Amino acid sequence: MHADVDIPTEVQRALTGFLDIQQERLAEIGPELAEQVQAARDATSGGKRLRPSFCYWGFRAAGGDPARPILKAAASLEMLHVSALVHDDVMDSSDVRRGAPAAHKRFEALQRARSEASGVGGDPVGFGIGAAILLGDLCLIWADEMLHTSGFDAAALARASKFFDAVRVEVTAGQYLDLVAQASGEADMDRALRVLRYKSATYTVERPLHIGAALGGAGQHLIDSLSAYGLPVGEAFQLRDDLLGVFGDPAVTGKPAGDDLREGKRTVLVAYAVEHASEVQLTEFDRLFGRPDLDDDEIQLLREILQDSRAVRACEDLITERTEDALEALDRAPLADDAAHKALSDLAIAATARTL
Amino acid sequence: MHADVDIPTEVQRALTGFLDIQQERLAEIGPELAEQVQAARDATSGGKRLRPSFCYWGFRAAGGDPARPILKAAASLEMLHVSALVHDDVMDSSDVRRGAPAAHKRFEALQRARSEASGVGGDPVGFGIGAAILLGDLCLIWADEMLHTSGFDAAALARASKFFDAVRVEVTAGQYLDLVAQASGEADMDRALRVLRYKSATYTVERPLHIGAALGGAGQHLIDSLSAYGLPVGEAFQLRDDLLGVFGDPAVTGKPAGDDLREGKRTVLVAYAVEHASEVQLTEFDRLFGRPDLDDDEIQLLREILQDSRAVRACEDLITERTEDALEALDRAPLADDAAHKALSDLAIAATARTL
Repeated sequence: MHADVDIPTEVQRALTGFLDIQQERLAEIGPELAEQVQAARDATSGGKRLRPSFCYWGFRAAGGDPARPILKAAASLEMLHVSALVHDDVMDSSDVRRGAPAAHKRFEALQRARSEASGVGGDPVGFGIGAAILLGDLCLIWADEMLHTSGFDAAALARASKFFDAVRVEVTAGQYLDLVAQASGEADMDRALRVLRYKSATYTVERPLHIGAALGGAGQHLIDSLSAYGLPVGEAFQLRDDLLGVFGDPAVTGKPAGDDLREGKRTVLVAYAVEHASEVQLTEFDRLFGRPDLDDDEIQLLREILQDSRAVRACEDLITERTEDALEALDRAPLADDAAHKALSDLAIAATARTL
Repeated sequence: MHADVDIPTEVQRALTGFLDIQQERLAEIGPELAEQVQAARDATSGGKRLRPSFCYWGFRAAGGDPARPILKAAASLEMLHVSALVHDDVMDSSDVRRGAPAAHKRFEALQRARSEASGVGGDPVGFGIGAAILLGDLCLIWADEMLHTSGFDAAALARASKFFDAVRVEVTAGQYLDLVAQASGEADMDRALRVLRYKSATYTVERPLHIGAALGGAGQHLIDSLSAYGLPVGEAFQLRDDLLGVFGDPAVTGKPAGDDLREGKRTVLVAYAVEHASEVQLTEFDRLFGRPDLDDDEIQLLREILQDSRAVRACEDLITERTEDALEALDRAPLADDAAHKALSDLAIAATARTL
């Protein structure tokens, strides 16, 4: 991303170092816990490291000294993200994550192998779900521990913890809104926009910026400016992600093609289509959308309805508009560092572009 | 418990006050979140408040000033406990908690009513599980926020957070050991004793004492003395709880009679019975134990095997021995306060007695 720092490498180093320490602690409790640590290692590998990147550049935007352990602190957001993903996959019964089995499927396979070897043993599906709930809990706890043992002083941590508390609650609340939306079976643009904001925009962009900026000693004016940039970037990022969930290449997304259509994800894209589809389109859409057994032709039919109702066009327009808003806000923001301006501008474009 | 402080009332006040603030914050995200706050209110009502009590008396044992907000800090342990219970009930498919529907059953009923009213809507069982996972996450996050916003200074919080990190990881690790034990279908005394220690003894007694003592400024000698008292009390408490899970009165335990036998809980009681049962008893035990559909006669048969194999006697002996060890350790502990000695002595007896 930037010549002076290799964020993915530093984040990976922080995660690995932290999990090495946890592995020693957990080994005292029992050898079985190595299974949880290994699952955490695998789940925290890869990914785009977007949240730590925004955190890092929020810190630099506030004039934070890059020699401070900001990437150890920023890596806590990746641990938090893994917690949310692991629990989300259980809730959605999503079996694949980043091209590999989701955590609950991984634990299910582990238990199946164990009971085949011993000839006794309980329900592997239940074990997989239970073990994944606990993995998500561990990652949620560890995220907090990573932040407060990162090496910042108590005053900086106290400033940051206000935003860290906020983001943890917001993403969980956003998940609940999403769950209610899926369960309601109703398309509701207002709710889809709130899910977009709390499950994604604050969580992926705004709060990571705030946490970094608070650690760097930011005042309220910079915090507000980072919201003006971060919220639209976060919304545009999620709108792009929603389009990729329907039209994306499995080789890029790491998920089966059209997976969001099988899951019945009530995104802004879907809410727009339902509001603007013809009666014939709507009948067809309702018949197919959210069915776990959709075949390729049915996926294609749903895609065409999303295209023909102009929902795709509307999402692309929103992405463009939000990204432009963000870049304008960035130009007005009182950043302490020109490198931060360049990096945040690049991140806004990368996070919302067609190819990511 | 003690004339100078009404711990349950103060803990309830702290929980209610904290949730009032969270309710306002969450209302900004969406009206749907009121359902989560209400579930948290109900789940944090009642209970014996054992963990906050040990935390309070750990603080007093260290000479902490009772005018400090120790019961606000101690109430965080009740929030942590609710998180563990809510996720535990999902993992065990336990439908009843403290005589009321478990959180996932409560959300399931909510969704069922909602979809009956609207005529549309998805799977209520899946909704219930997802919503309960999120409730447990919220309570886990809130536990941390309650502790670090309780009003203690940064130095005291830094001392306590070491133990708070430990207890959160230990209880989650203990749950995983327990899950592996249930799934293995094998009785294993070593593993049952480790579950006893990490899922209960450190979590219910030792760490709450440490957190309170650390907030009160305890040195290492007192911390170690509180372990010498707290671990055996915690183990005796859980052994009593395991006996009540099999032989307890549903009116007292708030769970159906023999529920632990239907769940197939691999307790120390069960591990002892399996190690010492005759071949005939063992065949009968294996046939019935862990079957969700056990009737009253079958429950009675399992109870008789636990009695006849002397497992009940062995557990009662362990409880007596551990409680005596704890009381002796208490007499040697360098407590700053005679009231703490009296209260911790009373708590040891109350937590391990037949009637609790």
